[in-house]
Amino acid sequence: MDVERDRGRYHSSASGLTVVAHFFGILATILMLVWLLHYREGLDLDSDDARRVFNVHPFLMFFGFIFMAGEAMMAYKTVKAEWQVRKFVHLFFHLVAMVLGIVGLHAAFKYHDQVGLTDMYSLHSWIGIGTFTLFCAQWLVGLAVFLPRSSPSHSKAMIAPWHVNGGRALLFMAIATALTGLSEKATLMRLQHQNEGRLINFLALCILLFGISVDFSVSLARYA
Amino acid sequence: MDVERDRGRYHSSASGLTVVAHFFGILATILMLVWLLHYREGLDLDSDDARRVFNVHPFLMFFGFIFMAGEAMMAYKTVKAEWQVRKFVHLFFHLVAMVLGIVGLHAAFKYHDQVGLTDMYSLHSWIGIGTFTLFCAQWLVGLAVFLPRSSPSHSKAMIAPWHVNGGRALLFMAIATALTGLSEKATLMRLQHQNEGRLINFLALCILLFGISVDFSVSLARYA
Repeated sequence: MDVERDRGRYHSSASGLTVVAHFFGILATILMLVWLLHYREGLDLDSDDARRVFNVHPFLMFFGFIFMAGEAMMAYKTVKAEWQVRKFVHLFFHLVAMVLGIVGLHAAFKYHDQVGLTDMYSLHSWIGIGTFTLFCAQWLVGLAVFLPRSSPSHSKAMIAPWHVNGGRALLFMAIATALTGLSEKATLMRLQHQNEGRLINFLALCILLFGISVDFSVSLARYA
Repeated sequence: MDVERDRGRYHSSASGLTVVAHFFGILATILMLVWLLHYREGLDLDSDDARRVFNVHPFLMFFGFIFMAGEAMMAYKTVKAEWQVRKFVHLFFHLVAMVLGIVGLHAAFKYHDQVGLTDMYSLHSWIGIGTFTLFCAQWLVGLAVFLPRSSPSHSKAMIAPWHVNGGRALLFMAIATALTGLSEKATLMRLQHQNEGRLINFLALCILLFGISVDFSVSLARYA
């Protein structure tokens, strides 16, 4: 792919798919808050109630990490602005996602400490830590390759398809992590046949549809 | 996208990424069989032992449905053959995936019947049924649009990006479904701190890496 040549193609206006992505992203955030504030104990990272500390984790991992990363992806591909501006917004939103993700991860480990649970045994934790680590690596490689004006354009062109596909894979890995986390929580607390269980299912469905519509809006930005 | 013009570009030989995808796909199949034959009761759709009936479900949903669908995707994009041949192989592998998927779904419902469990309450079942239904719809639309020689090329060109992105979204939805299913099973059976739990984690990880490497091999077939 020739980055210089393709630059113009990215100047497509925000498509209808971006609206769909925002719809599911905002709906998921609302359902998450209904779940944590109405059915659960609320959120507080400094609380002595370990459950309130834990609740910071799902909220920040979705709204802080996944939603912000989705915004970063869509900002680069669908907003009408100068290439340099979009690149900077893309980088900055991902930085916000990373920082909020770190706080979200901290909440989970702090909760484990408070109640004496073992860390890192579940599938959710394995793919979650893997995804987050690769996300940070992808951000650093992106920073090193795409930010400096002096970067040779052939190395940008060589890395670009891997960066794009890697970013999409990381988005879907993060979505899969969220779904296993919610499914594990509902199973552990035996919520499946209750209203709370159905709320969690709808929340997970919205997170999945957010991921799919972000992918569609970014991939089809040239066509739709 | 101009289908006619891009046709030649698909004639790229199977890339190294396809080898990686096969590695993880075959490893996941082996780990699945170790789990079901060594740790569990084995597989038998006609058994009076409901657990043996259930075990057909994870095996066919991965090896029958996800693995075959991945092969279908890779066959279209990475094998050196005539366009018509690749199109037919793509369609046929997907048909095999659909048939084996139906038998796999039947196994889950039969198990629920045998032990008196409620159907369709979990997140796993919701996204699983959604994915399978959309997969069948995608197959039918693909058949109607891309198979007839008389299909106007502008309608093929209009549908193609949606077909490609839809297929990829369905692959990731199927992977997310598999991961929630395995995570739910491990949580329900309280296997997390046992060897069996770790085996299931590695199995799920291989399924995830299969999905990602199929996506990479298909998306990067032109570059890698």
